[in-house]
Amino acid sequence: METVQQQLAATIRSYHQKGWSPATSTNYSYRENAASTEIFVSKSGIDKSQFQADDFMGVDFEGRPTPAFEGIKPSAETLIHCVLYDFFPETQVILHSHSIYSVLMSQRFPTTIEFSGYEIQKGFGGQTTHDATVQIPVIPNSQDMVEFSKWMHARRSDFSNHCFVIQNHGAYAWGKNLFEAKRHLETLEYLLEVSWKSQLNS
Amino acid sequence: METVQQQLAATIRSYHQKGWSPATSTNYSYRENAASTEIFVSKSGIDKSQFQADDFMGVDFEGRPTPAFEGIKPSAETLIHCVLYDFFPETQVILHSHSIYSVLMSQRFPTTIEFSGYEIQKGFGGQTTHDATVQIPVIPNSQDMVEFSKWMHARRSDFSNHCFVIQNHGAYAWGKNLFEAKRHLETLEYLLEVSWKSQLNS
Amino acid sequence: METVQQQLAATIRSYHQKGWSPATSTNYSYRENAASTEIFVSKSGIDKSQFQADDFMGVDFEGRPTPAFEGIKPSAETLIHCVLYDFFPETQVILHSHSIYSVLMSQRFPTTIEFSGYEIQKGFGGQTTHDATVQIPVIPNSQDMVEFSKWMHARRSDFSNHCFVIQNHGAYAWGKNLFEAKRHLETLEYLLEVSWKSQLNS
Amino acid sequence: METVQQQLAATIRSYHQKGWSPATSTNYSYRENAASTEIFVSKSGIDKSQFQADDFMGVDFEGRPTPAFEGIKPSAETLIHCVLYDFFPETQVILHSHSIYSVLMSQRFPTTIEFSGYEIQKGFGGQTTHDATVQIPVIPNSQDMVEFSKWMHARRSDFSNHCFVIQNHGAYAWGKNLFEAKRHLETLEYLLEVSWKSQLNS
Repeated sequence: METVQQQLAATIRSYHQKGWSPATSTNYSYRENAASTEIFVSKSGIDKSQFQADDFMGVDFEGRPTPAFEGIKPSAETLIHCVLYDFFPETQVILHSHSIYSVLMSQRFPTTIEFSGYEIQKGFGGQTTHDATVQIPVIPNSQDMVEFSKWMHARRSDFSNHCFVIQNHGAYAWGKNLFEAKRHLETLEYLLEVSWKSQLNS
Repeated sequence: METVQQQLAATIRSYHQKGWSPATSTNYSYRENAASTEIFVSKSGIDKSQFQADDFMGVDFEGRPTPAFEGIKPSAETLIHCVLYDFFPETQVILHSHSIYSVLMSQRFPTTIEFSGYEIQKGFGGQTTHDATVQIPVIPNSQDMVEFSKWMHARRSDFSNHCFVIQNHGAYAWGKNLFEAKRHLETLEYLLEVSWKSQLNS
Repeated sequence: METVQQQLAATIRSYHQKGWSPATSTNYSYRENAASTEIFVSKSGIDKSQFQADDFMGVDFEGRPTPAFEGIKPSAETLIHCVLYDFFPETQVILHSHSIYSVLMSQRFPTTIEFSGYEIQKGFGGQTTHDATVQIPVIPNSQDMVEFSKWMHARRSDFSNHCFVIQNHGAYAWGKNLFEAKRHLETLEYLLEVSWKSQLNS
Repeated sequence: METVQQQLAATIRSYHQKGWSPATSTNYSYRENAASTEIFVSKSGIDKSQFQADDFMGVDFEGRPTPAFEGIKPSAETLIHCVLYDFFPETQVILHSHSIYSVLMSQRFPTTIEFSGYEIQKGFGGQTTHDATVQIPVIPNSQDMVEFSKWMHARRSDFSNHCFVIQNHGAYAWGKNLFEAKRHLETLEYLLEVSWKSQLNS
């Protein structure tokens, strides 16, 4: 039986193969359970084509390494994970992607991306019919994690589909386990690609 | 020697890798033989990247679990499979795809998709020359399986190429064994992609 | 040490993964040596995702099964292989592809496809600089192998780059061994894709 | 523990699978350490789908085979590697790609390719923010390595992002180890693809 960190490491390698995490880009995290105050986040600067289960490190809800991991550098975007676990306490896995189509769609729709009428929209938890419009928030990119956190708080009510996009950067998706987080990210990525290609022709 | 359910599970995993079944989407079925009244359909909510031979369950021609599978939830689209086995009694395998190009082409051609002059059209059983026009029916999407079944009956005579497309949803293809069902689905997917790209340039 | 038929079978499976031979489409052949009058060609109707070394059968230069293979059906396009071995006696391997881009480019350039100035043109045997124009003949598609053979004879002098394209069908490439035939086909496929995408933008 | 040549050979095979080195195209090199005057470069004419650790050969800084490799032909572009090791003495690994998007972008931007505002720009060593414009030099293609070397010298000050593009040919990227060289090449390739697709729609 694989552990969650082994399963998540395998997912990361497979997403690298899809082109969602070129070189050392992207970052990922999980918690052992929904009550835990320790977040395991990917270490900084790991080549995602070779990511292993022991390439995670513990941080607290402020993004500081926990005692067993003192002196190791977590991903620069660790605070984004911290804010999401705070917003959605049932969350146990957070995924990130630098996919081409998330970047292209964020250029075209810099505030909100809408999808309407696609069967696969039901892949987002809470969506029960294709006959609806789903809105995904797009947040500006920033190096300043405090500023970025403020933007996340300002759009918090728009995060109901368990994902958001960052301009010219990529996408985040999460869930109460790896299975659900994958479903949310793969649903989003599919919709971003089909929508981008659809409007090429209109 | 692999069993049919092992071969079908391997096919499902390989189609996931092609991007035809993101996350838990799509569903598949087989029958042990053409006289059997038990249909083995994929269980609801399985991640298709990890689909295994024991992720099928038995249902009857009304889509109700057979005694050995009481209490397990079949795919929400089980009734589509039931209708197809009823229409085409020699069918033993049904495949489904959520491919990007089936969705894009269904937006452009919401009733019927036509292909003309492609060598690969001969991949559809009954087509013997590229010098022909092949018509594939496009059905509206619906959550209501009774309504959907009515639309299938209304287009029944258009199903002669062993496949159809659902608007903004995906494609179904079938055959008297896995080999033939694969040939029909891969032929359709190839034609959808090449036709979509061809008209981008015209 | 792998035999040539094992190496060719592995190449066929890898080309299937690239999308160059959906389902049972395409066909391939080799000869044991350049003096041999027996051609080993892929049997009809094999799923190329699972092609094995024993899925070849012997035929003579008229395309008739050799004694050990009586009663087995060779690929429908066997005569194309026979003509090519006759045209180019040093040839020992012939590859075929149903790639999307060969079809798209044949629609746009129904008689001759030209490439100019690409470094990779040097992948065609006899081309020694990128600073040249390479012409690849495009032949109409036909079910009638006798008619098709006449068209091949009419364009014979245009076959100097070891490959040609068939309208709405695919590409053939060949060489004195598998290494060279692969180089010719992969060079052609690369140029077809980059040329198609280049003109989308012009 | 894999050696650097084993790791580099595995990288080459994986880049072939991405379509960055069709057939025998592209070439690669490494040095054992930054003080070494022997460069190990890929031999000429190796199929990159099967590249092995012993497909490298030693050359000196003039591109001549070192004694153990007398009589073996190095890649035709060996002198490009020699110039780069001379320009950037800390370099230990040089990668090359014939990607479709490097060719397409070099057609559109024949002198300099610019990227602005993309998160992934930080993958280039020395770039610390997405909020910048990165310029990548494009060099004309030439068979004449002496002429090509002159062009490299003329643009030397533009090579600060550890990569450059050759018109209708491909891209080079380098680093002080394989990890860094991969990060530079994958960052460049990602940006070339997203920029190409972005401008298709504008």
